[in-house]
Amino acid sequence: MLPHPLAILSEEETNIAREIVLAAHPNTVIDFREIYLWEPPKDQLQVFLALEHAGRLSPTSPRPPRQALCQYDVIGGDRIPSYEESVVDVGSRCRTHHEVVGKQHHAALTLNEFDVLVEKCFASPLFQQALSEFDLPPGFEVVIEPWPYGGRDHSDPNRRFFQGLCFARDTTKNNPDANFYSFPLPVIPVIDALTSEIIRVDRPATGGKGEALDAQTFSRDIIGHCKSSDYVPELLPQGTRKDLKPLNVIQPEGPSFRVTDESLVEWQKWRFRVAFNPREGATIHDVWYDGRSVMYRLAISEMTVPYADPRPPFHRKQAFDFGDGGGGNMANNLSIGCDCLGVIKYFDAMATGPDGRPQKLPNAICLHEQDGGIGWKHSNWRTGRAVVTRQRELVVQFIITLANYEYVFAYKFDQAGGITVEARATGILNVVNIDANKTSDYGTVVSGGVLAQNHQHIFCVRMDPAIDGARNSVHIEESHPVPLDPVTNPHGNLYRVQSTPVPRAAALDAAPHLNRVVKMINPHKRNPISKNPVAYKFTPLATQTLLADPRSIQAQRAQFAQHHVWVTGYRDHEFYAGGRYTLQSQVEADGVADAVKRGDVVEDADVVVWSCFGITHNPRVEDWPVMPVETFQLSIRPSDFFTENPALDVPSDRNGSSVVVGGGGGGSCCKPAHL
Amino acid sequence: MLPHPLAILSEEETNIAREIVLAAHPNTVIDFREIYLWEPPKDQLQVFLALEHAGRLSPTSPRPPRQALCQYDVIGGDRIPSYEESVVDVGSRCRTHHEVVGKQHHAALTLNEFDVLVEKCFASPLFQQALSEFDLPPGFEVVIEPWPYGGRDHSDPNRRFFQGLCFARDTTKNNPDANFYSFPLPVIPVIDALTSEIIRVDRPATGGKGEALDAQTFSRDIIGHCKSSDYVPELLPQGTRKDLKPLNVIQPEGPSFRVTDESLVEWQKWRFRVAFNPREGATIHDVWYDGRSVMYRLAISEMTVPYADPRPPFHRKQAFDFGDGGGGNMANNLSIGCDCLGVIKYFDAMATGPDGRPQKLPNAICLHEQDGGIGWKHSNWRTGRAVVTRQRELVVQFIITLANYEYVFAYKFDQAGGITVEARATGILNVVNIDANKTSDYGTVVSGGVLAQNHQHIFCVRMDPAIDGARNSVHIEESHPVPLDPVTNPHGNLYRVQSTPVPRAAALDAAPHLNRVVKMINPHKRNPISKNPVAYKFTPLATQTLLADPRSIQAQRAQFAQHHVWVTGYRDHEFYAGGRYTLQSQVEADGVADAVKRGDVVEDADVVVWSCFGITHNPRVEDWPVMPVETFQLSIRPSDFFTENPALDVPSDRNGSSVVVGGGGGGSCCKPAHL
Repeated sequence: MLPHPLAILSEEETNIAREIVLAAHPNTVIDFREIYLWEPPKDQLQVFLALEHAGRLSPTSPRPPRQALCQYDVIGGDRIPSYEESVVDVGSRCRTHHEVVGKQHHAALTLNEFDVLVEKCFASPLFQQALSEFDLPPGFEVVIEPWPYGGRDHSDPNRRFFQGLCFARDTTKNNPDANFYSFPLPVIPVIDALTSEIIRVDRPATGGKGEALDAQTFSRDIIGHCKSSDYVPELLPQGTRKDLKPLNVIQPEGPSFRVTDESLVEWQKWRFRVAFNPREGATIHDVWYDGRSVMYRLAISEMTVPYADPRPPFHRKQAFDFGDGGGGNMANNLSIGCDCLGVIKYFDAMATGPDGRPQKLPNAICLHEQDGGIGWKHSNWRTGRAVVTRQRELVVQFIITLANYEYVFAYKFDQAGGITVEARATGILNVVNIDANKTSDYGTVVSGGVLAQNHQHIFCVRMDPAIDGARNSVHIEESHPVPLDPVTNPHGNLYRVQSTPVPRAAALDAAPHLNRVVKMINPHKRNPISKNPVAYKFTPLATQTLLADPRSIQAQRAQFAQHHVWVTGYRDHEFYAGGRYTLQSQVEADGVADAVKRGDVVEDADVVVWSCFGITHNPRVEDWPVMPVETFQLSIRPSDFFTENPALDVPSDRNGSSVVVGGGGGGSCCKPAHL
Repeated sequence: MLPHPLAILSEEETNIAREIVLAAHPNTVIDFREIYLWEPPKDQLQVFLALEHAGRLSPTSPRPPRQALCQYDVIGGDRIPSYEESVVDVGSRCRTHHEVVGKQHHAALTLNEFDVLVEKCFASPLFQQALSEFDLPPGFEVVIEPWPYGGRDHSDPNRRFFQGLCFARDTTKNNPDANFYSFPLPVIPVIDALTSEIIRVDRPATGGKGEALDAQTFSRDIIGHCKSSDYVPELLPQGTRKDLKPLNVIQPEGPSFRVTDESLVEWQKWRFRVAFNPREGATIHDVWYDGRSVMYRLAISEMTVPYADPRPPFHRKQAFDFGDGGGGNMANNLSIGCDCLGVIKYFDAMATGPDGRPQKLPNAICLHEQDGGIGWKHSNWRTGRAVVTRQRELVVQFIITLANYEYVFAYKFDQAGGITVEARATGILNVVNIDANKTSDYGTVVSGGVLAQNHQHIFCVRMDPAIDGARNSVHIEESHPVPLDPVTNPHGNLYRVQSTPVPRAAALDAAPHLNRVVKMINPHKRNPISKNPVAYKFTPLATQTLLADPRSIQAQRAQFAQHHVWVTGYRDHEFYAGGRYTLQSQVEADGVADAVKRGDVVEDADVVVWSCFGITHNPRVEDWPVMPVETFQLSIRPSDFFTENPALDVPSDRNGSSVVVGGGGGGSCCKPAHL
């Protein structure tokens, strides 16, 4: 059984790729970073998919070659790693592409590098000497949370660094999950990843309002004013709520979705493929509804979390949670009932060890249905007849943990032809030590001695539309007020809807005061009823773009986060809004900003649309110690794509399993009164 | 058992009020419009509630008198109705207030008046003569949909009018629910409600792009180019989907909510009262969380739906769905499984007949829980321990039908102390006839000969906060970019959070580019950890405000819809953002705009906050024949109100009823690995 061109690499294919790379670099040590599917070029894949959709695939049909992207360090005699990338054809077993990546870029991090940082810190006299300036209470152990270095300062040499955010854990609790974030330590060791040496220990400020940027008035009793804030239930002083009764989702006839060929999902006229890669996590491909093409590819492209505390070195706290180390690599193993409810289908994923061997990531993606409330309803008041349907949704979900934070990502498909990309931020705030009895302009004190710094989370979703075909355009629709005019608008109630094509690649912003809507249209196909071009649309979420000064490194390296919408011309493998190499970047390179500069024609073309949104997160005490989810939804909906409500034929039967308490209820609703 | 001061009037109390009014107006005919609870003045109710919360209520405790608001027409010898209102004390059986409402105002409509319109139309020679200009296909019957007249033109006399939107129903389908909206007729009869005479029949335009505002080129075969678009399942040509398997919500141990004293709801530390009135529908009162006061009153205050077709008389299509006829009066009878899922508790409501007698509205409100996905999660990557909780929500829901449209309103309470007010628009678009093969700048052709006109839906939610007490303030918080500065912002990553009190009543707008957040604070109470005042906050939804020209009658009568946020000083019974009398108003009177003009001090005061949001609805074909829900959510969340995540103690047990399909799954999640 031949693998689908979009299927993740099998263990065998991964091993073949590994061998090809090893063979291509004799007499060296290869430290692998990633080996994963190099997605087929679109022109090849479209040919295959067309045959597949037409039901005309045969064993002799042309298939795009199965290729692997291999990312690795080559360590030769000089012991200096050279970061290189190869694309290898695992069928023909040859290498088709090789690049020695320029030294201005840094490879994404691996968890091994993090482990090295922690080990070297504890062994470092420099670090131990820094720690010796404090007296920790008995039983407290230092915990080091490795982090990317962030955007290198102009004064930094171009070397590969990591930093360690430090906390202390109360071992007297006899619980390895005691919350060490409650006890932040104001030391930040920095490692030179090449030499594995701790080169310095930064001493961040711990002052409060009105104090200088380097104010450090801490005493030796650095966490004496901090207190435990645990989240694991066995450590909660109050215990857990006892009055929450179970709510179960039961699907007695099983799910309405079908998964075949390992990755093909069919549900309620939707048909699409689920894939996974160590960078983007779960990705969605070849999305069709009721025999019509909607989207070629949909994924979370990047996200950045810049911190707004101006006190060095906090300006370098800026993660790119997909690019820095691979979002997919951080995917949780989901399991029943906790992360998903109902009838669940899991997909396993694959990661790569430093030896290049595949490692299964079990249950990295879950698929399930959920009830989304009322889908549509109408009551005819004359007859008393009400027809109401529930909106069933299909959810493809993965969750990533980036040290302290969690992000829950879901692609939701509904019966009315809509796709929603949802992100929920949860997990633990990033916090630093603050002197006793002080507050700060740079964040909120959420626990004694614990300052949660102000920051932003900005996500970017990449949509590669295929609205009834591959050649699409982007139109910007707005609703404009119109002044009163005796001839054209005599009563002043008119507003004008205008639709403007986007001719060339561009960056755009949300404009809610104009009801600005982005429509991805097929200029060759008109709705036979309205005569408008068939389209899918979304309203750019008018959240704050990146606030940092445009001259700052934070801004320079995250240009994608400075606009709400990017429209670019398609290029194979141009997936990453923030560029290919984000780890300790100083500028965004080969991201959406560079793509726009090409000036591609995007009208009646293979166009890609990127939507950026997020939150300016000024923490509140309720976000501590673990934050209740903050939810973001990008809603992509058909716009004159269909000739009627696509959910019109959803059955409106009454659900017989619901029960009434306290009397009342009954009465006709869905049963037609006259039948 | 004495009724709670907020309980809806009983049948007995309603009858007493009725008798008092009749006795107060001897020798007249009284046409009742409404009799419902006149909510107690806040100063009296607060005394009672304080005793109630303290557990010190006794049979001799002072209780606010039970009063009824009676709205009715007094018809004396001259046969000219005088619209009057009385407040009567049903305990002491005396009238405490009486007002002859000024003639510049019109009483809200009753469905009886609508019935009269329909009857008189069919009997009207003027109307029949208008219809005679068309040839309807065999079996088609005219349907008249009564509507408010809308904002009277300056040239209109100040008389009480209604208009009838006309359609034709295909009786050959032998189904009374065949969708007559598919066949719009371009005649709009207008009735003088006092004389019950059809005074004219408006002939709206049916032209298309580029044609004059009065272009009517229709032929006698006025609906020959229209086609059926049914929504009742038995009339769907394609039938209903057969592959949707049931998804049941089962609560084997029953619900976690408790309803006592008829209206007191307790759930997951929340405690509040549910009430209902014929104007606002379901209202929420005396909201407390874990023994602390949050909100005194919460309700949907008003909504307006202005249409943007400039061709007369369409400018007068502007409904105020709460004020014109009472939103509560239009509440659906909800029933099991269709409108609500799981374990449901219904509340009945009461309406008033023209004879003043109470009429039960059964199942007008439903209460149930639902699963809202992941509530919070954190995985400690070191130990593999993941703690994840589901977010359970409690929903109080009612649904109103306004002729063609439905609105589903829900108050949702979550375990993290948050309240969400959700509105979903569904039902059938309002449509008019358009000539064959034409399109229009004023809307979208959604079916042959059927034009769905552009319009807006703007909702207003009234919040009467009681954040840890009655005297609150409103602060506006924004996040501002800060330029790079060598001393204060050397790396350019700082942004400044500023919080500005609102000193006097004001109208404000959303400002998403500044992350403008409205905080309702208690200036006397500080969070002991962050030192910030305790608060609840919301982000004003940056949807378009009313687009009509400010000089237009549409705008003059809906000033509330021109700003996103209104902050006013509390006055008893100042509930209605658009004013007390919206039916065919020309200007908004005694709404939020007038309240602001008072210039009340709102700092450390009894302040009321109104949030307006909505959608500019430029219809799409997918909205036809019934629209998939368009959802709006106002999210009101604690902000330094609590000293930690209020949902921290939600249990994280695995749900044992979920099942896995297709292998995989299992593995530790919530079970702590080291126990």
